Amino acid sequence: MKLYDSRRAPNPRRVRWFMAEKGIEDIEIVDVDILVGEHREPDYLAKAGLPHVPALSLDEGGTITESIAICRYLEAVYPEPNMFGLDPWETALIEMWTRRAEMLAATPLMMAVRHTHPALAVLEDQSPDIAARSLRDAERALKIFDERLGQSEWLGLDRITIADGVLFISLDFARMVKFKPPEDLLNLNRWLTAIRARPSAKAGV
Amino acid sequence: MKLYDSRRAPNPRRVRWFMAEKGIEDIEIVDVDILVGEHREPDYLAKAGLPHVPALSLDEGGTITESIAICRYLEAVYPEPNMFGLDPWETALIEMWTRRAEMLAATPLMMAVRHTHPALAVLEDQSPDIAARSLRDAERALKIFDERLGQSEWLGLDRITIADGVLFISLDFARMVKFKPPEDLLNLNRWLTAIRARPSAKAGV
Repeated sequence: MKLYDSRRAPNPRRVRWFMAEKGIEDIEIVDVDILVGEHREPDYLAKAGLPHVPALSLDEGGTITESIAICRYLEAVYPEPNMFGLDPWETALIEMWTRRAEMLAATPLMMAVRHTHPALAVLEDQSPDIAARSLRDAERALKIFDERLGQSEWLGLDRITIADGVLFISLDFARMVKFKPPEDLLNLNRWLTAIRARPSAKAGV
Repeated sequence: MKLYDSRRAPNPRRVRWFMAEKGIEDIEIVDVDILVGEHREPDYLAKAGLPHVPALSLDEGGTITESIAICRYLEAVYPEPNMFGLDPWETALIEMWTRRAEMLAATPLMMAVRHTHPALAVLEDQSPDIAARSLRDAERALKIFDERLGQSEWLGLDRITIADGVLFISLDFARMVKFKPPEDLLNLNRWLTAIRARPSAKAGV
């Protein structure tokens, strides 16, 4: 398998983080530079279908894009340690918290960065109004994650799962616009310190 | 099991559509009126955790929110017909197209409706700029789905899956602001006619 990766984007980092948590080291990494448009070149588009990174090309043919679809595929090939749930209830809880992390944190924080950071003006017709709304939405949502992390050591279950990776990487990406979770969110900050201390935090950055 | 449903919102409809495709008839439906705030009442919040609809309460305790997490749970309990994939490759393709439908169509179309429709001014500080950008993004994305549907009868695989439901319901919801896919997207319109003709199209509306 080959993973098409990009060091400058948060979605590829999810897959690198996931691979590090699983100890997966036998997948070839191919760097795609999105700021110079390598993801729009015909060879890449023929494989990935869309100008999206990451993409996973399989040995038997076929390419998967979308970070969570790639991670779920890798889970089937490398089942240990489990990151998507061992039974329907665990699987549902992990998916619920992964989607909350995606919709309530990752999407607005990504929008805030795209609409604020000068380097991304080439990708986006930037709007200060959208940036401000996005930050406000994300800050509001962080209270939900803080409350959850007061009841559970990790976001989805009592062990680390893909849900933690999605929330962590979105918060780390938002450092590009100097965003930090409020200090009074003690549970969230406890969790952030713990996840930043793991070797996987350095994967793909 | 009990499903907390709401006739006015697109996410609950995904679950009703999914149940109709599966022929699931033994789950009690409880209507939650979000326009009068029933999803913010203490009893509901104690179960669902967040003021989100739909929610599935299990007989053995525990509640799942997030439409796709609920559907994946139901897939485990009612495996036929399969809607999430029979092997890792099918599962990855379905998740890839479900996420594309979610991010590229459902999210911007939902934003367009929330920022346009007079009845939703109570839920959203409406912005014509956000409405226009969202519509433009969704229209651009429909070409991707049209191209896919020129190669495949259904969106994820050659049979109907959850990916089709997510795209279909987002397009149907956008009729609230008189949005219609452009007529020259022949494959998308062929698919839309086919999915609208199924009995599941009337579930939960």
